[in-house]
Amino acid sequence: MAEPVRLALIGCGRIAQVAHLPALEKAEGIELIAVSDLSAAVARSVAGRYGVPAAHTDPSPIWADDAVEAVLITAPDRFHHTLSTQALEAGKHVLVEKPLASTVRDAEDLVALVDRTGLVLQVGAMKRHDQGLQYARAFVADRLGAARSFNAWYRIGDLRPGIEATLFPPVFAETEARRHEASLKADRQRYLLATHGAHIFDTVRFLLGDVASVVARHRQDERDHVWQVLLTTTAGAVGTVTIAVDVPGLPAEGIEVYGAAGWLRVDTQFPFYRQASSVQAYADGAVVSPTFTDGDAYERQLESFARTIRSGGRPDPDVRDGLAAVRLIESTATAVEIGGEVKL
Amino acid sequence: MAEPVRLALIGCGRIAQVAHLPALEKAEGIELIAVSDLSAAVARSVAGRYGVPAAHTDPSPIWADDAVEAVLITAPDRFHHTLSTQALEAGKHVLVEKPLASTVRDAEDLVALVDRTGLVLQVGAMKRHDQGLQYARAFVADRLGAARSFNAWYRIGDLRPGIEATLFPPVFAETEARRHEASLKADRQRYLLATHGAHIFDTVRFLLGDVASVVARHRQDERDHVWQVLLTTTAGAVGTVTIAVDVPGLPAEGIEVYGAAGWLRVDTQFPFYRQASSVQAYADGAVVSPTFTDGDAYERQLESFARTIRSGGRPDPDVRDGLAAVRLIESTATAVEIGGEVKL
Amino acid sequence: MAEPVRLALIGCGRIAQVAHLPALEKAEGIELIAVSDLSAAVARSVAGRYGVPAAHTDPSPIWADDAVEAVLITAPDRFHHTLSTQALEAGKHVLVEKPLASTVRDAEDLVALVDRTGLVLQVGAMKRHDQGLQYARAFVADRLGAARSFNAWYRIGDLRPGIEATLFPPVFAETEARRHEASLKADRQRYLLATHGAHIFDTVRFLLGDVASVVARHRQDERDHVWQVLLTTTAGAVGTVTIAVDVPGLPAEGIEVYGAAGWLRVDTQFPFYRQASSVQAYADGAVVSPTFTDGDAYERQLESFARTIRSGGRPDPDVRDGLAAVRLIESTATAVEIGGEVKL
Amino acid sequence: MAEPVRLALIGCGRIAQVAHLPALEKAEGIELIAVSDLSAAVARSVAGRYGVPAAHTDPSPIWADDAVEAVLITAPDRFHHTLSTQALEAGKHVLVEKPLASTVRDAEDLVALVDRTGLVLQVGAMKRHDQGLQYARAFVADRLGAARSFNAWYRIGDLRPGIEATLFPPVFAETEARRHEASLKADRQRYLLATHGAHIFDTVRFLLGDVASVVARHRQDERDHVWQVLLTTTAGAVGTVTIAVDVPGLPAEGIEVYGAAGWLRVDTQFPFYRQASSVQAYADGAVVSPTFTDGDAYERQLESFARTIRSGGRPDPDVRDGLAAVRLIESTATAVEIGGEVKL
Repeated sequence: MAEPVRLALIGCGRIAQVAHLPALEKAEGIELIAVSDLSAAVARSVAGRYGVPAAHTDPSPIWADDAVEAVLITAPDRFHHTLSTQALEAGKHVLVEKPLASTVRDAEDLVALVDRTGLVLQVGAMKRHDQGLQYARAFVADRLGAARSFNAWYRIGDLRPGIEATLFPPVFAETEARRHEASLKADRQRYLLATHGAHIFDTVRFLLGDVASVVARHRQDERDHVWQVLLTTTAGAVGTVTIAVDVPGLPAEGIEVYGAAGWLRVDTQFPFYRQASSVQAYADGAVVSPTFTDGDAYERQLESFARTIRSGGRPDPDVRDGLAAVRLIESTATAVEIGGEVKL
Repeated sequence: MAEPVRLALIGCGRIAQVAHLPALEKAEGIELIAVSDLSAAVARSVAGRYGVPAAHTDPSPIWADDAVEAVLITAPDRFHHTLSTQALEAGKHVLVEKPLASTVRDAEDLVALVDRTGLVLQVGAMKRHDQGLQYARAFVADRLGAARSFNAWYRIGDLRPGIEATLFPPVFAETEARRHEASLKADRQRYLLATHGAHIFDTVRFLLGDVASVVARHRQDERDHVWQVLLTTTAGAVGTVTIAVDVPGLPAEGIEVYGAAGWLRVDTQFPFYRQASSVQAYADGAVVSPTFTDGDAYERQLESFARTIRSGGRPDPDVRDGLAAVRLIESTATAVEIGGEVKL
Repeated sequence: MAEPVRLALIGCGRIAQVAHLPALEKAEGIELIAVSDLSAAVARSVAGRYGVPAAHTDPSPIWADDAVEAVLITAPDRFHHTLSTQALEAGKHVLVEKPLASTVRDAEDLVALVDRTGLVLQVGAMKRHDQGLQYARAFVADRLGAARSFNAWYRIGDLRPGIEATLFPPVFAETEARRHEASLKADRQRYLLATHGAHIFDTVRFLLGDVASVVARHRQDERDHVWQVLLTTTAGAVGTVTIAVDVPGLPAEGIEVYGAAGWLRVDTQFPFYRQASSVQAYADGAVVSPTFTDGDAYERQLESFARTIRSGGRPDPDVRDGLAAVRLIESTATAVEIGGEVKL
Repeated sequence: MAEPVRLALIGCGRIAQVAHLPALEKAEGIELIAVSDLSAAVARSVAGRYGVPAAHTDPSPIWADDAVEAVLITAPDRFHHTLSTQALEAGKHVLVEKPLASTVRDAEDLVALVDRTGLVLQVGAMKRHDQGLQYARAFVADRLGAARSFNAWYRIGDLRPGIEATLFPPVFAETEARRHEASLKADRQRYLLATHGAHIFDTVRFLLGDVASVVARHRQDERDHVWQVLLTTTAGAVGTVTIAVDVPGLPAEGIEVYGAAGWLRVDTQFPFYRQASSVQAYADGAVVSPTFTDGDAYERQLESFARTIRSGGRPDPDVRDGLAAVRLIESTATAVEIGGEVKL
């Protein structure tokens, strides 16, 4: 077997601690050899718990360290572009949390840089590594016939905090840093559309290909937001995407696709349950629901990233997928503003 | 108890035979005393089976018959306006199959005529008499909080003919008449939008009130059609309606509504199973699913019609609801044509 | 195509009117040419509605009528043995409602008579003609591996009367006859075990083969009864059967079977919904749920009966299946009485 | 708020690492201050990861340590009795993994010792702290009416290892120790009945009270076992319990209870998903499904244990519940052997 990919983690905040570090501890083909966080206390605590030899408060030593082959960037969204750029220029492969960047322009810069360096850049839209969605994609390709229509939904439920309190390990954090970060999410409407849209728009593209146009409506109730988006894909499927934060009750995420010869329904679980999406796939007179056991999409995306580095091929999602997701986010925001159709 | 309402049935085609006549046979407070159909053979056969004393090939004797208090109009859509007009002018109460009329203008004429005559006109969008949808409406009013978003769907499945063959009694028909009717559905796109839209748009209005604007996309694949519609209600809820004919597999119809304090999902059964809609209604930490037994919405609409005639009150849906459904159908068609938003 | 089988219906009570007559009207390969009922009014009304040329108050003319090839016996249970015997001796094929007979001895007589006459006798345990159960049986044979354990249930819910009021057409009946019949169900415990056991025990045998032993417990609460039965099949599967009348809520009927390589769950609908059983069948990493449209098991059993008469083969269930069901009913009753195991 | 209970953990094997330690890290009102394991390496690794000050290879120092108020015993089953006895005699409160002991006699000894010492002994049948089962118990008490019948199931699926590989953190273990333990599960039939029966029999008693008699059948296929048990409760409910190891596919655990006024279905999730049981509770015309977020029954049982120590009351399940479960396990084994009924 190949040598494990030697990885450094940039940003040890909540998502790193609840999703990526437990996955890194178990993922095959990858070895965490350094962490970095603005907070020395957090970096040290994380390194201690997971037995990581090096803990930094600045990524510079990581860029300079030849032992580091790749980085996982889980710093706040607004640093994705800069850190990814620095990593690529330092010759490191990059797995960067979604969204790839805050603007289409920044995302385009990264496309160019990846093309120039030839390095692997994978975007952390980890649902592409969900066994259920992978089954769904194969079904769409093989048995659904031409996709004609679809409806996707991504609803954050107001019971989410309780679920997270149950599922998450204790998180090392500095109160001050947390407060600062929260203040940067002040444009809550933009933040929510970007952070959730990055998932559901990527799922739409994963199953249905590129989107050609969007029309969108938005409604705000104090801290709650909902977007209803009408989309046409390049291939001519017509569909809708609903993004709602928060709805009463449990979170819900999924997509239905209707084709010429079959249909498909995917219900994606809250990721920290570590369950693959439930799939119902109809064709030829029967609904098939595959059973899956390997439900940690964070672990699976790491293993896929490591295999791509060692064996080549296109990372999934790649930098262009990341750009396309950012473009859909921006187009939806624009469509809400102008009230009319935005062509991509 | 009040005297049963003496009813005449105008049009003894398939929907009359599979839905209305079995319902009339059992409905309380209503008595079928005459039938009329262009085909003498069909009128006679139906009258024989159900023990109806009078069978006509023309509605004129019904208009003239003082014993007839009310009519149920189940003739083809294009005759709804004319027959309803004649009935009202003859002083008969009217239960007319949906859609109320083929055009907004014709529907508006009927509104005026109902206002002038003071007679009862109820539109046969019978789902308002489905126990599940009635529960849903009460839940929306009482517990959901302000409705913020919704998604509705109405999909005819390609397995429908097999289901109908199982559920329907043998139908008396003249081959020639059937062929002629089928030829009049030649503008299939318009016909499908009207016949299915009349149901799902009425359900949207029943639960969410009036619609202020629509944007719509349409896709055609030979005989199959799909509409994706983005709607804003007068009260500010944003939602989508999907109408698809045919999709592979079983039919599916329903709506989800998300509010400030709860959510609701309604799954409406294929009506000839005579099962009320399944409802899941979430508020205050629990999903409630009521169980219902009185699942024949056709029978329930007849009984409601009879009660309205005897006891007064607004029929449901009334002529203005029928007009609003026709307006939504037309607006959707227009929105597809112009590609932009249509304000109602 | 073969000539339709000319059939006479013996007994025009409720089950005949709500299940068999609507099925006869549509079944292919079979033609109803006479009916018989103790009540002349009922026989006449039924014959009128369904256009049957002959209506009798005694089956004698049917036995004597050479035009009648076969009879459907839907008279009360206690007449099944006598009427089936008379029919067979008159040279008529027989489809007799379940249970085949009231005692094992009577059922054994019929086995001997069928063997002697070579006529077709099919028992009206119509669920064997349910598409879902037929799929289940094939799955058990082909993919489940050796069946190891099972759990079956048959629960009548207290909402059943409301459902029947919705689904059933108006029934022609004489009040006096009804009262008399009800009085004969005075040994309610025995009646309920026989009438419901005849279905669920037959389903167990249909999927799992013969039963070798039973242990059973019974509990009574006024008019309500429940049996819990522990069974071992001849092939060594261990299982349970629950029969409960009434439970609160909707009726429920089904079976789960676990085998060496897969499992199966069947949920059987209340039959008058005319829906095939829902099946979930697991093997090789996926649950398959077939979709069915031909959901009238009463119609399907008639068509199967007609095909067997015309083309030969074993009717399903045949007279020995009917005997085995009666034996299971009796053994369960005995097991309750003695408190110990009954070997069959 | 009260001082946290100072706890020592005896036995750092797999269940401790995957269930109890992550729960201890988060549970309120309890503080882990020492661990003990036969393997020094395992004790040290666990202590290191969770920041526990003391790691022993023998429990003696724990018995002697006045700072330790309570112990959590997660050593192999055969040590439960001895370690619990030592702990109680050393004046420590005890939370001991299920089953309480290997024999009824040993369990009875512990009942006497608890009575004598007045200390808290809670058995680790943690499902009593599952929010779903707690809701179920309240529903049975308040709305179900007298329980008449029930069916419970506990099926280990052959996909369990894959699920555990996904959900479990890396486990510190010594290969030799693991092999030794496995050899002690050589009487697999007895081991499986005890380890799984301890859960499902406790659930039956939690909802339905004491069991008066059992009849049982068992089938073995190489390493697979299934028990079908017919039970009567002291209150007169008749029911069945199915225990199967392994069945193809996913694990499944649950119970249905039918009462005079309602019914209840509980589906218990594989515990490491940290989801409360799904409940459907029917009464008065509606099925209610509560939503829960606090799904870590291991954490909840720890918090309950700590509260009982600080505030008094009966631990749940207590030592007599533990004894009753052991008695049901033994009675089931005996019932299989003798083929007849065992009265408890």
